[in-house]
Amino acid sequence: MATKAKIGVLGASGYTGADLVRLLLRHARVEIVLLTADRRAGQEMRDVFPQFSPFPLPKLVAIDGLDWAALGLDLVFCALPHGTTQTVISEVLTRAPATKIVDLSADFRLADPAAYAKWYGHEHYAPEIQKEAVYGLVEVHRREIKKARLVANPGCYTSCAELPLIPLIEEEAIDLDEIVIDAKSGMTGAGRSARESMLFSEVSEGFHAYGVGGHRHMAELDQEFSAAAGRPVVVTFTPHLVPMNRGILSTIYVRGKQGQAPTDLHAILLKYYLNEPFVHVLPFGETPQTRHVRGSNMTFIGVTNDRIEGRAIVISALDNLVKGASGQAVQNMNVMLGLPEDAGLL
Amino acid sequence: MATKAKIGVLGASGYTGADLVRLLLRHARVEIVLLTADRRAGQEMRDVFPQFSPFPLPKLVAIDGLDWAALGLDLVFCALPHGTTQTVISEVLTRAPATKIVDLSADFRLADPAAYAKWYGHEHYAPEIQKEAVYGLVEVHRREIKKARLVANPGCYTSCAELPLIPLIEEEAIDLDEIVIDAKSGMTGAGRSARESMLFSEVSEGFHAYGVGGHRHMAELDQEFSAAAGRPVVVTFTPHLVPMNRGILSTIYVRGKQGQAPTDLHAILLKYYLNEPFVHVLPFGETPQTRHVRGSNMTFIGVTNDRIEGRAIVISALDNLVKGASGQAVQNMNVMLGLPEDAGLL
Amino acid sequence: MATKAKIGVLGASGYTGADLVRLLLRHARVEIVLLTADRRAGQEMRDVFPQFSPFPLPKLVAIDGLDWAALGLDLVFCALPHGTTQTVISEVLTRAPATKIVDLSADFRLADPAAYAKWYGHEHYAPEIQKEAVYGLVEVHRREIKKARLVANPGCYTSCAELPLIPLIEEEAIDLDEIVIDAKSGMTGAGRSARESMLFSEVSEGFHAYGVGGHRHMAELDQEFSAAAGRPVVVTFTPHLVPMNRGILSTIYVRGKQGQAPTDLHAILLKYYLNEPFVHVLPFGETPQTRHVRGSNMTFIGVTNDRIEGRAIVISALDNLVKGASGQAVQNMNVMLGLPEDAGLL
Amino acid sequence: MATKAKIGVLGASGYTGADLVRLLLRHARVEIVLLTADRRAGQEMRDVFPQFSPFPLPKLVAIDGLDWAALGLDLVFCALPHGTTQTVISEVLTRAPATKIVDLSADFRLADPAAYAKWYGHEHYAPEIQKEAVYGLVEVHRREIKKARLVANPGCYTSCAELPLIPLIEEEAIDLDEIVIDAKSGMTGAGRSARESMLFSEVSEGFHAYGVGGHRHMAELDQEFSAAAGRPVVVTFTPHLVPMNRGILSTIYVRGKQGQAPTDLHAILLKYYLNEPFVHVLPFGETPQTRHVRGSNMTFIGVTNDRIEGRAIVISALDNLVKGASGQAVQNMNVMLGLPEDAGLL
Repeated sequence: MATKAKIGVLGASGYTGADLVRLLLRHARVEIVLLTADRRAGQEMRDVFPQFSPFPLPKLVAIDGLDWAALGLDLVFCALPHGTTQTVISEVLTRAPATKIVDLSADFRLADPAAYAKWYGHEHYAPEIQKEAVYGLVEVHRREIKKARLVANPGCYTSCAELPLIPLIEEEAIDLDEIVIDAKSGMTGAGRSARESMLFSEVSEGFHAYGVGGHRHMAELDQEFSAAAGRPVVVTFTPHLVPMNRGILSTIYVRGKQGQAPTDLHAILLKYYLNEPFVHVLPFGETPQTRHVRGSNMTFIGVTNDRIEGRAIVISALDNLVKGASGQAVQNMNVMLGLPEDAGLL
Repeated sequence: MATKAKIGVLGASGYTGADLVRLLLRHARVEIVLLTADRRAGQEMRDVFPQFSPFPLPKLVAIDGLDWAALGLDLVFCALPHGTTQTVISEVLTRAPATKIVDLSADFRLADPAAYAKWYGHEHYAPEIQKEAVYGLVEVHRREIKKARLVANPGCYTSCAELPLIPLIEEEAIDLDEIVIDAKSGMTGAGRSARESMLFSEVSEGFHAYGVGGHRHMAELDQEFSAAAGRPVVVTFTPHLVPMNRGILSTIYVRGKQGQAPTDLHAILLKYYLNEPFVHVLPFGETPQTRHVRGSNMTFIGVTNDRIEGRAIVISALDNLVKGASGQAVQNMNVMLGLPEDAGLL
Repeated sequence: MATKAKIGVLGASGYTGADLVRLLLRHARVEIVLLTADRRAGQEMRDVFPQFSPFPLPKLVAIDGLDWAALGLDLVFCALPHGTTQTVISEVLTRAPATKIVDLSADFRLADPAAYAKWYGHEHYAPEIQKEAVYGLVEVHRREIKKARLVANPGCYTSCAELPLIPLIEEEAIDLDEIVIDAKSGMTGAGRSARESMLFSEVSEGFHAYGVGGHRHMAELDQEFSAAAGRPVVVTFTPHLVPMNRGILSTIYVRGKQGQAPTDLHAILLKYYLNEPFVHVLPFGETPQTRHVRGSNMTFIGVTNDRIEGRAIVISALDNLVKGASGQAVQNMNVMLGLPEDAGLL
Repeated sequence: MATKAKIGVLGASGYTGADLVRLLLRHARVEIVLLTADRRAGQEMRDVFPQFSPFPLPKLVAIDGLDWAALGLDLVFCALPHGTTQTVISEVLTRAPATKIVDLSADFRLADPAAYAKWYGHEHYAPEIQKEAVYGLVEVHRREIKKARLVANPGCYTSCAELPLIPLIEEEAIDLDEIVIDAKSGMTGAGRSARESMLFSEVSEGFHAYGVGGHRHMAELDQEFSAAAGRPVVVTFTPHLVPMNRGILSTIYVRGKQGQAPTDLHAILLKYYLNEPFVHVLPFGETPQTRHVRGSNMTFIGVTNDRIEGRAIVISALDNLVKGASGQAVQNMNVMLGLPEDAGLL
């Protein structure tokens, strides 16, 4: 068998980092040779996540002072906070031009520097790299990802909304001015920082919306939907927090265009995803549940009639930590390194 | 002090019945003299719900054979399953015409016999009584409820959607053909019957929609919204199940009519509910959470801008077991018996 | 009616403070005239806990600079962090000697300065006040509490273990050297500070022990059990965290002494708590659940046979935020102010 | 590569059956050729568990009328209810003597017919087969399992208690008359039958003991501990239900014998499990959490000092659906078929 690809994970002590490590350990074609976690440098992965106790893993180290050229990594996953990311990736690509990168932050998802500045409140720190970054929704941008050196893994909410909507928009099957996305996410979507609003006692036995009218993932949706439509598209999007760990479910309300019935929309999705291993379109009228995709890299999509003629309800579900983050990232890695796309993901 | 009103609760062994008993025990102006539970007849309430151990309560009895005239009840709460309800209420009103009834089932909510037959699959068993029933959303129908002998307590989903929408519809402030109600409910909304789909292991750590495109509460929404509008109104409504016990949150997407901005909608609601003790309109831009109303009879309503000009997002939250069931029922009782409307509910 | 007692709550923005406010609002004989919350000074209580929106409450203020004499409070609840408490209480008692205090921290629970220093790592800052503090387990120390100026509200774990065990120890009915207390608590027991280990994603869908072999509540247990026995008693005590909000359940393993059977232990408890409004001993062989006492000030106790002859399993349950904190505190207040002991607690 | 072993799963529509299918799908050396589910016969596995949609699987069939000889299965997993199991297994072994069986019910765990009759209320229906059944705790009975035709997969509670205790008992390191096992399990341990006590609304936000003083798993514990000790051993065992899906944690209280300190007990366990892939003994003083073993076939064991001299607290954790059921079953299969013991389990 071929030698294993040498992989690094930057930011291994967060939920996304840990889920990446979990997936990579099951992947026969790669080897984890670098794990960083600045606040935990010097510790073992098992000190942070005891579930890794049975597995041999490199010790956690700090990013500063790493010799990227000497490390000779084939690919680096970057699961660092916003901002830091731009500097680190700039450094890696300069020192080790042959190393590829899958970035799980939001830093390189927006191609337009103006959009970035608007949503993130400052100029981009690495605008020249921003240009070469490819948006990593494999089912839509597979061809560009194959050749990319830097791939920006999409947000979890956005993947869950883009996978059902982009085919419908590309086919001009729905009214672009009346799209409502009501999204619900488990708690891990919000990361591992210790904020009061994320305490068990604040979250369990409750449900609420947040970021109503202004969530950063909207910028990604605008970018991808507008690209698919060939003209500016703005959608209504409301995220909510569900008292569970994993899973996103999006309930999407659309109106068929020019006589397109819900069954027509279903047919478009069925065809688009016929050969995709990680998107499953349910029989017409069935709707997915987050638990059907828990722990897997699958996205389930269902289409049903609304009782108002001409309108359809499209529901999509994925695991925000897998297809919405680490699984998608491994899928990107597989495409970038020329490995079978589903390696380590079944 | 006046003598206490004599109260009966039919169907005391379900969640709604138990929550009624909990509220009535704290109510200084009433006395529970009858508790029925056919499958538990002969047992004490504490055998079914140990939390009632410290309180003296009448033993559970079967409904059959009760002498309604002799009982001389001032008011009966009927928390029985659909169907049975019609027969029992017919019997009570015939034998004890002075006894008033608050029915918590769906049996008398629809005024139109044809609508009833369509959504419930059979002719109504007590059509003559159906005519006199009053729809028990106090904030909207207070005047009729005062004089009613039979009040149909509204559904939990419908209360949560009607309270924010009826004022906006009455004021002709929103587009009637583009209302989307995305509703999320805790598990107790689904009752206490032992179905596989309601097991902890099926429900926890998951989220899903159900009854997409066809849920019976739609019939109530149609009736009340059409009455408010003076013409037929059909809305899009999708219920979801949240892995928590109590609480409903409705995210409602509307378009202002004739230049009505979200702030105008907010002003209409603020004015409508200014003196209502159980509906609280939050400052513009704030959104409610289910935990803010947990265990109380309050409904919280928030209005925010959508980022699409001319559209607003209205979010309402209530406790499905209280304002969505037993609290609303006690509020109806207070109005029907001429007691202070908030007695026992603070 | 008598005038209302004037009450202050120090530390109103924590869970315990909020639960105190909730109970005091329902209490007909008291009036909240002071709420402090240093980090939230200047805000309204509703800004911190929107569920209080419908109620008029004093604005949150900082503690520094309050004129305790001028405030003329009848009683102050102190729900402040460990350490700070000693200084603040010292100040209040000096400036306003007529003001009584119920302290919900651990600062005044240990009568022995040496024990305090051992478990908390430093000398007590107010040793002269420590002497006059009374341990506020009403069912055991009611007489002293009546006359006390400063009452130390017991810990939640300790109340749950002391209520079943103290009568058995006082009656010399169990072997003192073989008591095992396996305790399980909901998350609110751990307070509202934003620590990673208390995030929803770290806590939900999991269960674990903590503080094994060394939890501060042990010091309280030692003190109270030794006092009841008239000789030093050391028990085995292991706390665990349950993925739920409220509730503590203690499973206690004991061996009957000198032929005492489990039914004898049950009889002792039944007699001891016969007239207590807030302790309910279940019929022999029945065991309590946390949900039976949720939201109430009750403690439920059950006694069953172990299958090993001579040994019994005693299980107790209470709501850690009510009988384990704020409800117990209000009960103490009622006793101290000469109000009916159950006022505001039913 | 060798041909794949042909596997059947009887009772595939329960939680255990589904988890077996999940594991077998990842196992490179086996092929699922038979899935039975009497109530679901004729349906696809995906109709019962939509998460299997992406995988090709045989249709669900009824057990009655299967031609066991013609099927030529290498091994059958039997995940059927108690009672039925005995008849079915008797039939399989008669018709297809070369087919091996791993039984996940309790029917063949007790070697003593008298013990079986006592705990299950009737004589065993297949006593001659009962004799040849081997108790399937691989770490203890590996040698017999290798040669067995019928292996009785242990109960989840019992595995979690036996793995830490059997080595200590075999080494005569602990007092046999003072063992207390306080066990806590997630809800899937109780199966998928629709009982009121297992509804989300009955279970979530609550905690309680059950089967206090008399749970059937005690019979297994008696058998295995007595065998290890060479004399009758009876332990105290109390199971509790935790509001989570998966995981068992046992807090075990023991007294060292003849001067054995907690560190000595730790050393015994460390040595016993040194080369076991699925039992991990944590460093002394560390304690496991259920989430560390979630979804894996691992058992984590921790040993700490009790603060009472001479006593130790041993805590073990496993996933009740994996090491406590399907993972253990696959491990047994691997041993019985001569495959690598960890195949499909990493």
